[in-house]
Amino acid sequence: MSQYPHQAPAPAAITMGCPAGIGPEIICRLFRRSDMPGAGRIIVVGDGEVLRQAAARLGQTLVIESWRPGKPVKPGTLPVVQVGAPWTEPAPWGRPDAATGKAMGRYIEEAVGLIAAGHCSALVTCPISKKSLHQAGYPYPGHTEMLAALTHTPKVRMMMAGPRLKVVLVTIHVPLRQVGELLTQQEIADCIETTRTSLQRDFGVAAPRIAVAGLNPHGGEDGLFGDEEARLIAPAVQQSVGCGEVSGPWPPDTIFHKAAAGHFDAVIAMYHDQGLIPFKLLHFADGVNVTLGLPLVRTSVDHGTAYDIAGQNLADPSSLAAAVDMAQAIVGHRNAWGGA
Amino acid sequence: MSQYPHQAPAPAAITMGCPAGIGPEIICRLFRRSDMPGAGRIIVVGDGEVLRQAAARLGQTLVIESWRPGKPVKPGTLPVVQVGAPWTEPAPWGRPDAATGKAMGRYIEEAVGLIAAGHCSALVTCPISKKSLHQAGYPYPGHTEMLAALTHTPKVRMMMAGPRLKVVLVTIHVPLRQVGELLTQQEIADCIETTRTSLQRDFGVAAPRIAVAGLNPHGGEDGLFGDEEARLIAPAVQQSVGCGEVSGPWPPDTIFHKAAAGHFDAVIAMYHDQGLIPFKLLHFADGVNVTLGLPLVRTSVDHGTAYDIAGQNLADPSSLAAAVDMAQAIVGHRNAWGGA
Repeated sequence: MSQYPHQAPAPAAITMGCPAGIGPEIICRLFRRSDMPGAGRIIVVGDGEVLRQAAARLGQTLVIESWRPGKPVKPGTLPVVQVGAPWTEPAPWGRPDAATGKAMGRYIEEAVGLIAAGHCSALVTCPISKKSLHQAGYPYPGHTEMLAALTHTPKVRMMMAGPRLKVVLVTIHVPLRQVGELLTQQEIADCIETTRTSLQRDFGVAAPRIAVAGLNPHGGEDGLFGDEEARLIAPAVQQSVGCGEVSGPWPPDTIFHKAAAGHFDAVIAMYHDQGLIPFKLLHFADGVNVTLGLPLVRTSVDHGTAYDIAGQNLADPSSLAAAVDMAQAIVGHRNAWGGA
Repeated sequence: MSQYPHQAPAPAAITMGCPAGIGPEIICRLFRRSDMPGAGRIIVVGDGEVLRQAAARLGQTLVIESWRPGKPVKPGTLPVVQVGAPWTEPAPWGRPDAATGKAMGRYIEEAVGLIAAGHCSALVTCPISKKSLHQAGYPYPGHTEMLAALTHTPKVRMMMAGPRLKVVLVTIHVPLRQVGELLTQQEIADCIETTRTSLQRDFGVAAPRIAVAGLNPHGGEDGLFGDEEARLIAPAVQQSVGCGEVSGPWPPDTIFHKAAAGHFDAVIAMYHDQGLIPFKLLHFADGVNVTLGLPLVRTSVDHGTAYDIAGQNLADPSSLAAAVDMAQAIVGHRNAWGGA
């Protein structure tokens, strides 16, 4: 992990995401906020001309400055690492294609390079379009897989984090029918360990209290409604060793209430909606997606490109603000923890 | 349905539930509340002596009066329909057996009889133990099935109702793995119609807005993560006719947020935890279980017998208060609607 230093003085890098989406607009809105999180410690990797057009649409008089590694970030400006030649035409709001796909892919590659070289401290990603990523010839199903490949990471996990609830998913984008057959004791145990490490290193929780959800109604009710609890989940909880407390399997319908009330630092969810339903109920506007297992700090907004409203001054920068805030908090915790 | 009249003047009947559980205690606490819902319009079907002992444990000076059909309910008293001979020994807190099972079964039978005869307007049930119900020789897996049998009802549905969210479940106590194969278009369509009728008749919603959840992550994402949305749920939504609006399938991870924000009157959930996770997050203390499809009005507390704390003055009557409140509101709506 030492090839990805994350010094506090280095700024965090926001990738602009798809130039045709709402990324440029939420970035401009963020930089105009008087309470902007981490002001003076953020740069953008993207296209200065698209950002200028986005600012103009918003009626903003934002000073967009070219930034290069080592240069101080001037307060009140929007510092940009220009990737490739500046956009020469009107910004393509709502019209993604292979060119926008290629551009957003290059922003990600550039930002990862800046972090690997120690010039930036963390990655905050604005939304991309999987479709135009493919059109541009990138072989990744999405952001997370691309980052795993660029950093040679074999296994990543998705955490959704907010002030009241953190959830980490064992299975993610699979049909509900397949969840039972995809779960293994080892996957659950790995997820517990990754979560424990992240809570300690990234969130400053010295002795993490991790709750592991069951899979079935009432946690299976002694085998009456399913056996995965006894067969897979309980053994994974028992095999876990390390500081803090790992408990479960808990009945799924009450454990998120307990966690949100402060009894646990994170909940391990067995499937997408088990974790995302309670998370989005509590953190619809301020939720952050954190990728666990990467050698670099990466957070992401919790929404898509929203092509239907791009360029219309309607996009809400709350999730981007929360993602920047959390990335910088994680960098702070990692440095305090020893930067391992 | 005319054999189950529900005149507003008739009191609602609370069944005492298992004499060894927390039912007697929460009933005594409820009747001592200065803000007791529906004061003067509730009677209890159970055992006066067990209630007297529960009140004594609480240090209450509750006047327990024998009640019979037609007798006015005296304010400030606890009116009881005594079923069988009064308990002759110390109340069996925390020690259920065949005798407590037989007793609680008879309370239910008696209460249904009172409602069928028009002497009571609604049924509010305190928790029973399925195990001692079996020990006493009753052939029902639980409360709801027993009520369905006593009222000759072929099909009932479970709604969880609270001030912010109402959910109705298509499948309930089955392993998560089996949900996919148990769902059918007809079951979903039936559930939609039962919910629509209940919202109109029981909750006074003239034109119900019903959201139907998908089954898979993101609602299947165009078949990428499952096909039940296209194969079963969308056709069930399309076949629904009647006033109001039925929409879906909606992505499961955001629909409960939308419903709680007031955009829908109820959500149809495909499986137990899809509905119960968000419901209990919002309504942990004040949730009410409403049985749809019965000819009588029935609500229930949202917790179990809690044998571990029975007789210890620890039980919280909030859910019982909410269940009484909702039963009386439903009776009011049904009478306004025409009593059908």
